[in-house]
Amino acid sequence: MIPYSIGLDLGGTNLRAAAVSHEGKMLDKVSGRTQYSEGREAIVHDMVEAIETLRSRLGVEHLEGIGIGVPGFIDLKKGIIRNCNNIASLENFPIREEIGRRLGTTVILENDANAAALGEKWIGAGRHVQDLVMLTLGTGVGGGIISGGRALRGGHGMAGELGHITVVPYGNPCGCGNQGCVEKHASATSVTAQARMLGLGDENITAKDVYELAKAGNPKAQAIFNGMGEALGILLAMLINAFDFPLYLIAGGMIAGWDAFAPAMIAEAKRRSFTFRTEDTVVSKAELGNEAGLYGAAYLPFCEK
Amino acid sequence: MIPYSIGLDLGGTNLRAAAVSHEGKMLDKVSGRTQYSEGREAIVHDMVEAIETLRSRLGVEHLEGIGIGVPGFIDLKKGIIRNCNNIASLENFPIREEIGRRLGTTVILENDANAAALGEKWIGAGRHVQDLVMLTLGTGVGGGIISGGRALRGGHGMAGELGHITVVPYGNPCGCGNQGCVEKHASATSVTAQARMLGLGDENITAKDVYELAKAGNPKAQAIFNGMGEALGILLAMLINAFDFPLYLIAGGMIAGWDAFAPAMIAEAKRRSFTFRTEDTVVSKAELGNEAGLYGAAYLPFCEK
Repeated sequence: MIPYSIGLDLGGTNLRAAAVSHEGKMLDKVSGRTQYSEGREAIVHDMVEAIETLRSRLGVEHLEGIGIGVPGFIDLKKGIIRNCNNIASLENFPIREEIGRRLGTTVILENDANAAALGEKWIGAGRHVQDLVMLTLGTGVGGGIISGGRALRGGHGMAGELGHITVVPYGNPCGCGNQGCVEKHASATSVTAQARMLGLGDENITAKDVYELAKAGNPKAQAIFNGMGEALGILLAMLINAFDFPLYLIAGGMIAGWDAFAPAMIAEAKRRSFTFRTEDTVVSKAELGNEAGLYGAAYLPFCEK
Repeated sequence: MIPYSIGLDLGGTNLRAAAVSHEGKMLDKVSGRTQYSEGREAIVHDMVEAIETLRSRLGVEHLEGIGIGVPGFIDLKKGIIRNCNNIASLENFPIREEIGRRLGTTVILENDANAAALGEKWIGAGRHVQDLVMLTLGTGVGGGIISGGRALRGGHGMAGELGHITVVPYGNPCGCGNQGCVEKHASATSVTAQARMLGLGDENITAKDVYELAKAGNPKAQAIFNGMGEALGILLAMLINAFDFPLYLIAGGMIAGWDAFAPAMIAEAKRRSFTFRTEDTVVSKAELGNEAGLYGAAYLPFCEK
């Protein structure tokens, strides 16, 4: 037997847990059975059961620690989820203490976007650097910042809220109260909303449909992806000018449309960042897909020591 | 005698050096006599002489180290100034090695904007925090980022290039190749350029003149300062969303116009940052004026240990 950690990812629609070795090799994996709509007790029970299953299979004596990635803002001092994007029943609940009590051990919490960035840093596209920024383009735009090998959390656990950075000052309105947030110009949701606005389809149109139209030469669909690239380029230039990190990763379902938005993204970032034009700064795709958060959660007991 | 360090600030038009105690008390201070236009050898000689003067007055046995703040990008590994805003003769010169050789000791280099932010962190408006961002509004807009009590330098010494972050995507053109950089919308130069554009004065008009017009009720001058506030608010919201640091300091000569631009700045930042609206994040004036860089340079031997 070898030393391992357990990572649990609460993202998406169901929970997943994995036992991972110190070298980043996945040793075992389980999925939860609970729907998040079933409420707090069912979710917590399922989380504990998933971890216990792995722990009993791999041996408690070699377990280095347990990390959990959760969607939302975390109060790290108190170990509670302050704001949970899609599991309201976990808000303001002392989840770290409760899971720790039931398992008889300590657990480490992390925001899921930070966990995904940590996973890429550990064994993914960021494995050769200590500093990176990751943007996850899905229904929204998430951000994770790794500085000196660890997640940058900020004073309130709210660092890396990159999806709500303004890139078009008088752009599309956002539910956060702002307008022109990057997530209203570069997410799957923004692509389909614009497609409907331009008459490219009805409420069933997907980002993949718009991508295929763009690749087939439809100028409206191409304009949508160019606009997405420009919005991302403005954001990347801003991040490069502020951080001067060596690596910026683009992750999430929308990277399937990379060739439709990346040329405009790179051109715009070059235009708007002297550093990007002159230095060996890299913008590239993430590698781990939706396993990134699971690996990142498992990495927490190793990197937070 | 007490332990002290020596800080040297190459900013502005002449060099200054100070001996500072570990507690941040200025013990002694000298100014250089050389004009930067006199060339490299004269500047280096003057730097060494200023430091030697202080060292001989305060005693070599209590000197903890020497820090130098320089205007430009620094290659920290090599100890050279890569790009020097107003002292071209120092570019690509191994200044750290040369000064160290002549003084018979090691010196620490830092970008002047980072040094100023470090000074505020040490004994100025940031003395109660470990993380802050400082914006210096002068003829341009400079930035310094302190993370975990130290300057964030980035992979190429170019972190904190905040003056060239895009805040108005199709705004005023900038010498850096971009347009809409915050420094083209929120510096003294941008204020006077806009004032001339609006017929408020000729080439001799100063930012102070425009400020006084605004305070006297001139709507064009007020619009200029409101626009400056909005540009800064967009930048602050970006920084708060990315870093979630507790403190953002505004420094430089333009803070004399604080009451003319700050209301729009704060309103815009609140509108564009959920974190700023809901958390105890502070935006305030820096306290040390043009001594900040001198203190920050002197802090380097203490904080880089």
